[in-house]
Amino acid sequence: MDAEIIAVGSELLTPYRLDTNSLFLTDQLNRLGIRVIHKAVVGDGPEEMRSSFEHALARADIVVSCGGLGPTDDDRTRQTVAELLGRRLLENQDVLRKLQERFRRFGRAMPEINLRQALVIEGADVLPNPRGTAPGQWIEARGHILVLLPGVPQELRALMEAEVSPRLAKLGNQQRLYTRDLRIVGLFESEVEQRVRPLYAEFSDTETTILATASGIQLHPRIWSDDPAYAESRLNELVGRMTLSLGKHLISTCGETIEEVVARTLTESHATIAVAESCTGGLLAERLTSIAGSSAYFLGGVVCYSNQLKTQLVGVPAELIEAKGAVSAEVALALADGVRQQTGATIGVGITGIAGPTGGTPEKPVGLVHIGTADPRGSREKAFRFPGDRERIRFFATQNALDAVRRLCLFPPVPQEE
Amino acid sequence: MDAEIIAVGSELLTPYRLDTNSLFLTDQLNRLGIRVIHKAVVGDGPEEMRSSFEHALARADIVVSCGGLGPTDDDRTRQTVAELLGRRLLENQDVLRKLQERFRRFGRAMPEINLRQALVIEGADVLPNPRGTAPGQWIEARGHILVLLPGVPQELRALMEAEVSPRLAKLGNQQRLYTRDLRIVGLFESEVEQRVRPLYAEFSDTETTILATASGIQLHPRIWSDDPAYAESRLNELVGRMTLSLGKHLISTCGETIEEVVARTLTESHATIAVAESCTGGLLAERLTSIAGSSAYFLGGVVCYSNQLKTQLVGVPAELIEAKGAVSAEVALALADGVRQQTGATIGVGITGIAGPTGGTPEKPVGLVHIGTADPRGSREKAFRFPGDRERIRFFATQNALDAVRRLCLFPPVPQEE
Repeated sequence: MDAEIIAVGSELLTPYRLDTNSLFLTDQLNRLGIRVIHKAVVGDGPEEMRSSFEHALARADIVVSCGGLGPTDDDRTRQTVAELLGRRLLENQDVLRKLQERFRRFGRAMPEINLRQALVIEGADVLPNPRGTAPGQWIEARGHILVLLPGVPQELRALMEAEVSPRLAKLGNQQRLYTRDLRIVGLFESEVEQRVRPLYAEFSDTETTILATASGIQLHPRIWSDDPAYAESRLNELVGRMTLSLGKHLISTCGETIEEVVARTLTESHATIAVAESCTGGLLAERLTSIAGSSAYFLGGVVCYSNQLKTQLVGVPAELIEAKGAVSAEVALALADGVRQQTGATIGVGITGIAGPTGGTPEKPVGLVHIGTADPRGSREKAFRFPGDRERIRFFATQNALDAVRRLCLFPPVPQEE
Repeated sequence: MDAEIIAVGSELLTPYRLDTNSLFLTDQLNRLGIRVIHKAVVGDGPEEMRSSFEHALARADIVVSCGGLGPTDDDRTRQTVAELLGRRLLENQDVLRKLQERFRRFGRAMPEINLRQALVIEGADVLPNPRGTAPGQWIEARGHILVLLPGVPQELRALMEAEVSPRLAKLGNQQRLYTRDLRIVGLFESEVEQRVRPLYAEFSDTETTILATASGIQLHPRIWSDDPAYAESRLNELVGRMTLSLGKHLISTCGETIEEVVARTLTESHATIAVAESCTGGLLAERLTSIAGSSAYFLGGVVCYSNQLKTQLVGVPAELIEAKGAVSAEVALALADGVRQQTGATIGVGITGIAGPTGGTPEKPVGLVHIGTADPRGSREKAFRFPGDRERIRFFATQNALDAVRRLCLFPPVPQEE
């Protein structure tokens, strides 16, 4: 079975807003074995809207729309679909009573214009909206299913989960989509693709989407099947092969972020952590503390932009900064050691580098970052040269610092080899 | 003139990816006075793609597509459009030579499959792609204009700006879109809407989009007009009225972020800043240092999660924490004063609060945040109660801290009144 999603709303045709409801709807539909073959965004104009619904009904078994069910003149989805199907719009007394009750509950009289929200297309099933005023509508027509949902994300989600998905599940579609969610750190998108692409031919019954997000690279292998056991074992096999290709860069096969993995490993290791950052300006501390409960392992951090503060707050010797420069392996190690000693944490992390766009030299170019870690076994440092702008350099630096902490906990350094 | 945008690519029909090119394209088209009336996302299937292009040509004067111009079997935009228009695909020798040169420059032989990228639809103008292999194509057919662009964002942008926009500008469309970009801090979206909505009736020839983004609330008033002087004066009038309604909450009328405004005000005031954060975990330091050149005013920051570090690194008296609690007005003031003294900065900021989800009590609930500021004139504190989850509470807290710094510079406190 195929579906099309129509997002209704003139604001979605400006340079400022994207329809994001369709991602959630696609996920829900895919889980039920329904493919999304087309998405449309259309404004409030009755002609364009009518043409969108008409073409969607010609293409797809199921058409899901979101938006245009509000109480104003611009909310024309109900009327447009009714006219297209040649059906009447009827005032539904049950919906009307619920609307009036809702307003009474909030101590207000129902404005006249909200009457419009009690209009239901002839023959439609009303889908009650627990989170808002506009109910959804489920219409079977011309051998197709048409579902009208409100555009407010929390209302749409509640309605989809409580009303629409259970009905779609009953359609008897045997095929389902099975997926995995792999997270990778320390490789660029193109490097990840290079490592996994050779598997695509062998696993041609699967599809894999690679995604570079704000929190790292993701791989989403998926397979459509009516045989759950086959689908799961096939995905396990593929993920096993991907694991071999990705090695220690693979941090999770179930969608955990690097922040979550680090939180878990620190907790499991009964370790605490403190950080001293220069070029990343607090981003490492921010990411470590973005996890609820991080006070169990995160003691504190120092953002020492000026050389004076590196000495004053973390105890980096002024002579060392003078001799080696603020951006150096030695200062990264001293930051890691210093913040560990100052705070009594199990693990100390030090970052110093040049995030740019200014401040680079031929010897120490923009993108050069030194990351040091210290723990009871000693300290070690690694230099990186990251591409991109200031934001990307700071992101990559913290990404690799988090990964260094993860590896320190999971793969302890062999003595004498550091 | 009306336009439709078609984004081609099966990955855009998964739950993981959105078409974002259309925002850039809409902005470019709007600037030339061309409205976007419909957007479509379609996969690699030839039938669905053909149907999308066919309907778009029936609806819009101009159809812009992105994607499907690569060298693989799945890249079917060229062929689908050629078939739809009943035109031949011809190998273009000029394009072919440039492709071969490009590969030679990178020291590689051109793979056979790239030949496909030299195919040009009969009668089309070739739009050279300086950033990649696939050229764009400009086709005039059936009284419409069809523009095929590659899907890689930097290639699409370069082609649109260098080739497509200049050609569209020549079409002689007199109407243009005029816009403003207002940024607001310290009000929720609904509060902003309540304040500006009364203006909509009076300025019914304008449209305003309100947008809640990761960096605050934005208002985008706009007007379509063929009279630049009228449009600008009308927008100025509307923005003037909005300024009165929004007061000190309006931080910019030209799209500056709060980070940029704070950077500018600190620089203009010749002031330096240092911060001591608890519940925001480094996010305030991160936002202050996200601006290039921030080392000119940002001295450093301390993330003191544990009470011990509040005392050790910032000098907050242990007895004060004991007596008032770590989340208190007194500790926020002591953090601001302490970090200012430790670093010698002009302005010190202290944040302490409960980001949740745990740690709240009836007296000190999740979302309670105290923000203190200290400068040569003294120190002052404000308590907030923010709604939402951990991420939103941390965001609102830093947003209001940045705003407190902005106000401290722009509207100095009246002596004796603090």
